[in-house]
Amino acid sequence: MAMQFLSDNAAAVHPAIWRAMQAADAPDAPYDNDALSAGLDAAFADLFGRDCAVLWVATGTAANCLALATLVPPHGGVVCHREAHIETDECGAPGFYTHGAKLLLADGEGAKLDPAGVAAVLDAIRGDIHQVQAHALSVTQASEYGRCYTPAEMAALAGFAQERGLRLHVDGARFGNAVAHLGCTAWEACAGADVLSFGCVKNGGLGAEALVFFDPALADLARVRRKRAGHLQSKGRFLAAQILAMLEGGLWLENARAANAAAREIAAAAGERLLHPVEANEIFLKVAAPEREALRAQGFSFYDWGPDAARLVTAWNSDPAHVATLARAIRAL
Amino acid sequence: MAMQFLSDNAAAVHPAIWRAMQAADAPDAPYDNDALSAGLDAAFADLFGRDCAVLWVATGTAANCLALATLVPPHGGVVCHREAHIETDECGAPGFYTHGAKLLLADGEGAKLDPAGVAAVLDAIRGDIHQVQAHALSVTQASEYGRCYTPAEMAALAGFAQERGLRLHVDGARFGNAVAHLGCTAWEACAGADVLSFGCVKNGGLGAEALVFFDPALADLARVRRKRAGHLQSKGRFLAAQILAMLEGGLWLENARAANAAAREIAAAAGERLLHPVEANEIFLKVAAPEREALRAQGFSFYDWGPDAARLVTAWNSDPAHVATLARAIRAL
Amino acid sequence: MAMQFLSDNAAAVHPAIWRAMQAADAPDAPYDNDALSAGLDAAFADLFGRDCAVLWVATGTAANCLALATLVPPHGGVVCHREAHIETDECGAPGFYTHGAKLLLADGEGAKLDPAGVAAVLDAIRGDIHQVQAHALSVTQASEYGRCYTPAEMAALAGFAQERGLRLHVDGARFGNAVAHLGCTAWEACAGADVLSFGCVKNGGLGAEALVFFDPALADLARVRRKRAGHLQSKGRFLAAQILAMLEGGLWLENARAANAAAREIAAAAGERLLHPVEANEIFLKVAAPEREALRAQGFSFYDWGPDAARLVTAWNSDPAHVATLARAIRAL
Amino acid sequence: MAMQFLSDNAAAVHPAIWRAMQAADAPDAPYDNDALSAGLDAAFADLFGRDCAVLWVATGTAANCLALATLVPPHGGVVCHREAHIETDECGAPGFYTHGAKLLLADGEGAKLDPAGVAAVLDAIRGDIHQVQAHALSVTQASEYGRCYTPAEMAALAGFAQERGLRLHVDGARFGNAVAHLGCTAWEACAGADVLSFGCVKNGGLGAEALVFFDPALADLARVRRKRAGHLQSKGRFLAAQILAMLEGGLWLENARAANAAAREIAAAAGERLLHPVEANEIFLKVAAPEREALRAQGFSFYDWGPDAARLVTAWNSDPAHVATLARAIRAL
Repeated sequence: MAMQFLSDNAAAVHPAIWRAMQAADAPDAPYDNDALSAGLDAAFADLFGRDCAVLWVATGTAANCLALATLVPPHGGVVCHREAHIETDECGAPGFYTHGAKLLLADGEGAKLDPAGVAAVLDAIRGDIHQVQAHALSVTQASEYGRCYTPAEMAALAGFAQERGLRLHVDGARFGNAVAHLGCTAWEACAGADVLSFGCVKNGGLGAEALVFFDPALADLARVRRKRAGHLQSKGRFLAAQILAMLEGGLWLENARAANAAAREIAAAAGERLLHPVEANEIFLKVAAPEREALRAQGFSFYDWGPDAARLVTAWNSDPAHVATLARAIRAL
Repeated sequence: MAMQFLSDNAAAVHPAIWRAMQAADAPDAPYDNDALSAGLDAAFADLFGRDCAVLWVATGTAANCLALATLVPPHGGVVCHREAHIETDECGAPGFYTHGAKLLLADGEGAKLDPAGVAAVLDAIRGDIHQVQAHALSVTQASEYGRCYTPAEMAALAGFAQERGLRLHVDGARFGNAVAHLGCTAWEACAGADVLSFGCVKNGGLGAEALVFFDPALADLARVRRKRAGHLQSKGRFLAAQILAMLEGGLWLENARAANAAAREIAAAAGERLLHPVEANEIFLKVAAPEREALRAQGFSFYDWGPDAARLVTAWNSDPAHVATLARAIRAL
Repeated sequence: MAMQFLSDNAAAVHPAIWRAMQAADAPDAPYDNDALSAGLDAAFADLFGRDCAVLWVATGTAANCLALATLVPPHGGVVCHREAHIETDECGAPGFYTHGAKLLLADGEGAKLDPAGVAAVLDAIRGDIHQVQAHALSVTQASEYGRCYTPAEMAALAGFAQERGLRLHVDGARFGNAVAHLGCTAWEACAGADVLSFGCVKNGGLGAEALVFFDPALADLARVRRKRAGHLQSKGRFLAAQILAMLEGGLWLENARAANAAAREIAAAAGERLLHPVEANEIFLKVAAPEREALRAQGFSFYDWGPDAARLVTAWNSDPAHVATLARAIRAL
Repeated sequence: MAMQFLSDNAAAVHPAIWRAMQAADAPDAPYDNDALSAGLDAAFADLFGRDCAVLWVATGTAANCLALATLVPPHGGVVCHREAHIETDECGAPGFYTHGAKLLLADGEGAKLDPAGVAAVLDAIRGDIHQVQAHALSVTQASEYGRCYTPAEMAALAGFAQERGLRLHVDGARFGNAVAHLGCTAWEACAGADVLSFGCVKNGGLGAEALVFFDPALADLARVRRKRAGHLQSKGRFLAAQILAMLEGGLWLENARAANAAAREIAAAAGERLLHPVEANEIFLKVAAPEREALRAQGFSFYDWGPDAARLVTAWNSDPAHVATLARAIRAL
């Protein structure tokens, strides 16, 4: 049987999530009119220390795209990193949800952006009617290469976005891993955002992500668009239950810390092979094809990342024995 | 505590569904690359006695709208009943998914259509470039008033659709209730359809519907559009598990029969008050406001249906005691 | 050679329009940065006695749909008459421009609406998230049957729209014919509108309509969407020239009066055959198929209007001899 | 008065175009049912030596975007140059017309593409459902920097596109200038294309471009979408007349040759200042800000092109005296 480092999407559902879902299996109002859904705003307000309006959705793509659709008109643009998930892995979903708004691609090390990188995109746009104007900025915390924005970096970006009149979206598919790494508050890790996609599925959830609006006025539009996109599940209480269980007692952070620790253990073994500093739960390794073959022969599953590299991902429940075995195997390459 | 006849959406999840989901909580490939998802085509081919290509999605709205988007171009139209769910209760989702195709509204008793009703719509359309041309027909089995198309009625509609060059979609949010009532095969209840939204959520599921393509060539397009709509869940195995459990041993029919039987018991008590023959699991009653108040005072929950009527819905787990009490209460009005 | 009563679209271009276009054939800035385009706002402000922001577009469909797209979000609805041009003759263009917003169809005599007819549509919409909510009202002045809204009727509709929170669009493809009939000011004929499609093409123009925003803040959005729809012509000065020439010296009213007078002459001959009072430049006649054949044999061209009727349209340059001959021919049927 | 080298969009309308338009001012059927519109297919079949289906539209943006919308589904992608007009100067119109399809940006010298540049984009796309797949290739003849594809280059691209399963669109806003430069046949300049935007407005037209389908089956879809986009003008005969006049006697080539000759005269004076070889009617010059100021002080109008360059465009009617004066002025800088 494979030792699984393919994806945190493939990991098991946390027992507390199962318990919460089963506890939700009592009659209540359909859609998001149930008591659990009604409790989301308060739960996130506690977490972030400010007013929130929160919607559940089934996937990160839906969360990201509903967020963008509330921030950007069809004729507008969203600045994001060239390797952002919304650009590379959502099959054009942002174009669908925004009715054709444009992703304006910026560069930055480790799939992270900074004000200079964003400015390079913005400053190349003429302010006339022939060019698509930027309306929002979207960044990923932790980034597609598992890199985290420090509170200072996030504040700089948020300040810059505000200065340039851009709304700010944070894709937090691995937000827990970022906060676990940074050791800051949840708010500090996304301070200044208008809306955050707060990931649960990669962190021990089953099928629920939280879309957190720090500007609650935006949430009403997102609610209509969620319904219109077929994402208003009639038994929504089961999604709310997952999210609340994730927040309960800090499970989201606990799970993320476990995944990060496993990643650090592997990283420590990888030395010079690391293509990116390991800050969250992803490890990008320089490994030649025969080396990858050797690892797979030992039972490890993972993705190739181009011709000479591999991506390994740990999860909340990565087996310590598997992790240790993998670390040894990498050292032994 | 309320005796619940509000919606089958509010009903509990069947224990077999829970068991199947938990059994699915083992490592497997993400998205729909897992073994359970791979088994859907064969399971439905068995049920319908013909090749099928099957996708899971979270909601009936997503199923319906992905179906329509595969059948109709943005500049086309879909004939449906004036009271069809896609027209009245999906917040314009068909317009979103089809990029603006038009619903062309037909009339028919009990929210059912027949060839004459569809022809009345088609024949009023000039075949020129200034008018939207119909590309598909969508019917609901059982209808929004709980009415079922007999195999003969369905065959007549399907033949007519083919004659007029229309693709055929069947919204089967309550398909099980229809088949349970009709006593025909699953295929006879939708014979001629290109695609069927096969409902599970109202029938004891948690959050999975099956989109069944009888023209498998259409499914590939739907797969891309599902991803693009944010409906390709990364832990899709949990949706596949629900659907397979629903088919296993005929659970879908068993649950539907239970719901229908409860509805019949109430209908038998309602006599002249019935606004529509009760064939599936919905009862539409003529009841004045004070009578509704009286029923609610006794602990029954249900929806008003205009000023002088009510809709009551039974479910797979409607409590026999509640049903009997309700029947008595209606008789006593 | 045919005596043409088919469409005012088929009529010739007025000599003053030709002269204005040729006078515009001097170097100037491209798109709408030329002096003529810059003069539109002031010209319409004079005509309507209030601030206007005015854009040229090539067609009435583009004008109507850009107007609607500024008033209604993709998830919203527009109430209009069941026989409104935007519903029946624009090939779904409103769905394209608004990204899937819904036309909500109301009834009313002569293709005209009144508050009660609009209220019947609005009051049937539940205010919940499952139904499309109305955001705007669109009426046609003169209507698709050549009927005009009196200033009092228009004021009642505008007041009602405001009361219900609806923005108001007036499709004025034949606005000149309406004002010519009503004998009121231009503003009285559309008072309360947020935006007016001011038609020129049917009234002696070549290929330019004016989109007049009485709420100038809306115009900026329309400008971007016009470009995005490929309607920002690079030699826009030729469209501006047409529109300005149409306003110059009241040519629009003069042309409309000529067309209306010709229609009245025909109407006077039609007596009991008239299906609608003739107020603008369209005549709807009850004429059996053999009678239509007889008219065509005499050289008249016109459209059938269902099995037993015909539509005849006069234009600014309807030949008085043709009109008189037609009147005699109708009397002689 | 300025000596105008700002844009060929600002140039005058050719007298033959005016004559053709005025000759078209006789009663005929509306929309594209007139005799002139009906003649377009044959006229272009003559020019290209093969079957064509041809539609008129008012603008190059509409032509390009209708073309793309027939070639690419909403979930697909179009490979084009990073500096293609569809990417940089159409305000996101391709996203609007295609319902959110993605432009996939390739690199190449002089805003031209070659198979290697396109392959670099294609080969970076995983063939899975998470990434947008390319469905078409769009190239510009002459390119945005006035560079032309030789018949051999065009054939290589077309062969490559076919090999990779991509449909081919050619943006020929300045197609005449390209053919005039290349001295090849019209077909050789776009051989292998499925559809060509054949520009007239920059070449002495008023407001008509031809959309030429070499795969006539595609044209029917484009016809519906043209109507749906509000681009089916009711007096379409005036657009057809312009295009036919442009082809008549080779006016399109004659005009393009005149513009190209003027550009060559200026280029000859520019020497080392030329940023791109001058093949069509655009000249990109390295000129510092004070030099540009000096030129403007002498009465020349043109666009800045970044901080140290200028773009000058000649037209069919560039005044020989102005051209000579400009050449001298550049030499004297």
